[in-house]
Amino acid sequence: MPRFLELKAVQKLQKLAADPIDLSKEGSLTPERIAKMRLSMKGFDLLFGTERVSEPVLEALYELAEEAQVQKKMASMQSGEILNKIENVESENRSVLHTAMRDQFEGKQTAPAAVEASGKAAKELQKLEKFLAKVDSENKFTDIVQIGIGGSDLGPRALCLALEAYARPDRRAHFISNVDPDDTNTVFNGLDLNKTLVVVVSKSGSTLETVTNEEFARARFKKKGLDPKNHVLAVTGEKSPMDDPSRYLASFYIWDFIGGRYSATSMVGAVTLGFTLGFNGLKEILRGAHTMDHHALTAPLKENLPLTSALLGIWNRNFLQLPTVAIIPYSQALIRFPAHLQQLDMESNGKRIDKTGKAADFSTGPVIWGEPGTNGQHSFYQLIHQGTNIVPLEFMGFRNSQREHDLEVQSTFSQEKLLSNLFAQSIALAGGQKNENPNKFFPGNRPNRILLADRLDPFTMGAILAYYEHKVAFQGFIWNINSFDQEGVQLGKVLALKIIDLFKERRTKEKAAAFPLGAAYLKILNEKS
Amino acid sequence: MPRFLELKAVQKLQKLAADPIDLSKEGSLTPERIAKMRLSMKGFDLLFGTERVSEPVLEALYELAEEAQVQKKMASMQSGEILNKIENVESENRSVLHTAMRDQFEGKQTAPAAVEASGKAAKELQKLEKFLAKVDSENKFTDIVQIGIGGSDLGPRALCLALEAYARPDRRAHFISNVDPDDTNTVFNGLDLNKTLVVVVSKSGSTLETVTNEEFARARFKKKGLDPKNHVLAVTGEKSPMDDPSRYLASFYIWDFIGGRYSATSMVGAVTLGFTLGFNGLKEILRGAHTMDHHALTAPLKENLPLTSALLGIWNRNFLQLPTVAIIPYSQALIRFPAHLQQLDMESNGKRIDKTGKAADFSTGPVIWGEPGTNGQHSFYQLIHQGTNIVPLEFMGFRNSQREHDLEVQSTFSQEKLLSNLFAQSIALAGGQKNENPNKFFPGNRPNRILLADRLDPFTMGAILAYYEHKVAFQGFIWNINSFDQEGVQLGKVLALKIIDLFKERRTKEKAAAFPLGAAYLKILNEKS
Repeated sequence: MPRFLELKAVQKLQKLAADPIDLSKEGSLTPERIAKMRLSMKGFDLLFGTERVSEPVLEALYELAEEAQVQKKMASMQSGEILNKIENVESENRSVLHTAMRDQFEGKQTAPAAVEASGKAAKELQKLEKFLAKVDSENKFTDIVQIGIGGSDLGPRALCLALEAYARPDRRAHFISNVDPDDTNTVFNGLDLNKTLVVVVSKSGSTLETVTNEEFARARFKKKGLDPKNHVLAVTGEKSPMDDPSRYLASFYIWDFIGGRYSATSMVGAVTLGFTLGFNGLKEILRGAHTMDHHALTAPLKENLPLTSALLGIWNRNFLQLPTVAIIPYSQALIRFPAHLQQLDMESNGKRIDKTGKAADFSTGPVIWGEPGTNGQHSFYQLIHQGTNIVPLEFMGFRNSQREHDLEVQSTFSQEKLLSNLFAQSIALAGGQKNENPNKFFPGNRPNRILLADRLDPFTMGAILAYYEHKVAFQGFIWNINSFDQEGVQLGKVLALKIIDLFKERRTKEKAAAFPLGAAYLKILNEKS
Repeated sequence: MPRFLELKAVQKLQKLAADPIDLSKEGSLTPERIAKMRLSMKGFDLLFGTERVSEPVLEALYELAEEAQVQKKMASMQSGEILNKIENVESENRSVLHTAMRDQFEGKQTAPAAVEASGKAAKELQKLEKFLAKVDSENKFTDIVQIGIGGSDLGPRALCLALEAYARPDRRAHFISNVDPDDTNTVFNGLDLNKTLVVVVSKSGSTLETVTNEEFARARFKKKGLDPKNHVLAVTGEKSPMDDPSRYLASFYIWDFIGGRYSATSMVGAVTLGFTLGFNGLKEILRGAHTMDHHALTAPLKENLPLTSALLGIWNRNFLQLPTVAIIPYSQALIRFPAHLQQLDMESNGKRIDKTGKAADFSTGPVIWGEPGTNGQHSFYQLIHQGTNIVPLEFMGFRNSQREHDLEVQSTFSQEKLLSNLFAQSIALAGGQKNENPNKFFPGNRPNRILLADRLDPFTMGAILAYYEHKVAFQGFIWNINSFDQEGVQLGKVLALKIIDLFKERRTKEKAAAFPLGAAYLKILNEKS
């Protein structure tokens, strides 16, 4: 497999990037272009007429996909071959099988590793279904607190918020992630512990923040005279320190072929989502994700939505040299979804070496950030329209609102106003506007694309989740990097434990001498300025 | 006033930037450096030994500040001279007096414009104090819903969340910003409208989203048989369409010398913060902000915290050429504060022309983004440590937690673990770590600084808010751009109204012909794919 910069299509694209289409030029941005640069699939539309691509650029991008064998790699991934690995270097050595979690419908994978993984997932789902039925029949619990951090928090939290309109009216979800005593107290202060379940999520069973917050939770139950064993659930890896059913009301498994940031559709997300939405709501999420998995795997290159989005991202990143991406859902319910995508993308593709073990001599994953629209329009869009750096945008929009209650004010509904703003921004950013007053001049050529769907329901949410997972995976395939490890988080953990040791030992001289930088900060901490 | 690139110190800094200090080199990052590169002020410490600056760079940065006359400009701003303006071009032409909102303590401004503005603010504060006393005595309201967007939402929302630990137990705040019918419904569904106040905030009195959501709110009250007049408050500009006390239970004013993103300490934030924290809590926020205003104005260059932070930012942006900044508070209560700073900074300094009306031939404001630590460590820190782009970080930390309830787990408290992680990351990012395995190699030289404070209470929150306002203003002064207008948000608004018109007219042919790009999107919207 040639390295990224050696791919023929890369060289072709570099030439094309010397003179990309100018969307601000009269006649560039036409209704025909918008109508043509569109891919559709089961209620989803990807609209990319407002990206800075021409037909030859698109052709070269699809050649790049072919040359990088992305379809073969996607098939390898979904069938359970070892993709989480780096050649010539000590590294993880694992399958990547988050797709098996939702491979529970028609058109199943047949490769043995994938079959085994989806079978394990099916078993946990059955356990969960039984457990939830028991909870229903006992009618005792109204609230669930998920304790977890990173992938054990961001995806499940984003999905719970996104689907609140579909939650059972008698059920609420809460989340604790940070090792911040104020946050833990704030969440627990509002709860009736008699009616509260806690689900502790840690694959290793030893995550510092999570273990600490579990102790917090157990102490709270005990203080109320309640036995934590009747309230606390575990989601963890087999044989982890948390794999001890005697301490938990119920236990569910995850495995090392599920990365944290890809775990929302495993038991990591399933317990809380199943509790709040009901088991059928959870299954709809899985069905949506599976539908997108199947599309990513089987759709031809030029009809493949997540692949096309990945290629447009590569064009912006490696050829137009744009270092960030803003994700802007025109839906307030998706307020925490950009934070999930931030982890998904930046932890997967923020890498400095490729899979051959050599330093990357090209840009890997961009900085991902974002907030819902229209909110962003009243905030950071000033810079997006007129700043000195160009920020590509990925918009999301929905034909219909989640709830039926909308109000006509000045002859339009709110959902119509929301969509009007989305389309207006897409046009304004791409096309810009001339003006003799330099402060009212909009340069345009701000690339953006829109993912449009019918309604943000559980099925659609699952599909959008998988759309982004596959966009990220396809980009990693093209760059030939390992999108599935995260060695870059280790050093900070090690140093944090050294400083915790300094606190523990009340700063004995020997410990301080062994880590003088940490001791310097602790000294400042103790001096009231 | 010379343009930015013509400043002598800029040329000096460009030379120094050719060979910045290598913090990853053995012996660069020492306890002495950490102890020395520290500014302190009334409980606040700015620690910047982990920035890529040497003594000569710091000298040149302070020369830059002097050459750009930042202290004179800060004095002009706080005394009410016309700073919101661009030469040679039709532009806004206003004072910038958010500091007057909290100039209610010792050491007041004496310039007539500032005196007039702080007098106006004092009058509104008295009205609010009386109003809140009446609310207390009637003991009728438990909840307040703030309807506003952009500056009328982000700052107040961030502060309310940050100070929840100090809120009255009988009071809750809620926020509606987006023109998203689902969000509006979600917020109102949870409320007892008998006990609910709504405060509608719009300086112009005509913000699309806010006007729409006010109608939503009024319809909700009417449906319950309640008169909106007994529940709805207004915060608006004099003579705006909302300046109609006959429709509101109470009305409060803001003025055009307060920009939306600088308005959290005006009535825009004061009503909701006063309702939840009590009037004394609100006054503590103002007192904290005023303390930082006074420091920004009077501290010598080399002792000035917001100025020093601004200069370090300019070094990273214009000389190390780093396009983004991550803001990472090690406090979950500050979860929405980065979103406020995103608006504050990007709307202020995301500009393409300078105050002479000429195109900026240098980089202006960076992309600002961020999430709380330690959460980010389990998410995007992979890219921060090992990505191909370098992201400077601004950390915040607190010596003590807000609430007294902390738990000792494995011999340390959670607050100690939180701070250990903060310090560890600062060291790890700057110093990096050598390793023969390229995947475990950390390049280091990731610049970062820490703002350390005693405890996130109302006073400290006010001071931190003002610290960032002044950091942003100082950067604008140095770049000689207008940090106080936002022409870049206009084009999107105009086009959105055109598309709303298309919806209104149910897409008549004439309207569609007049705006064919909008019509193209609407056509796609109506085709079910």
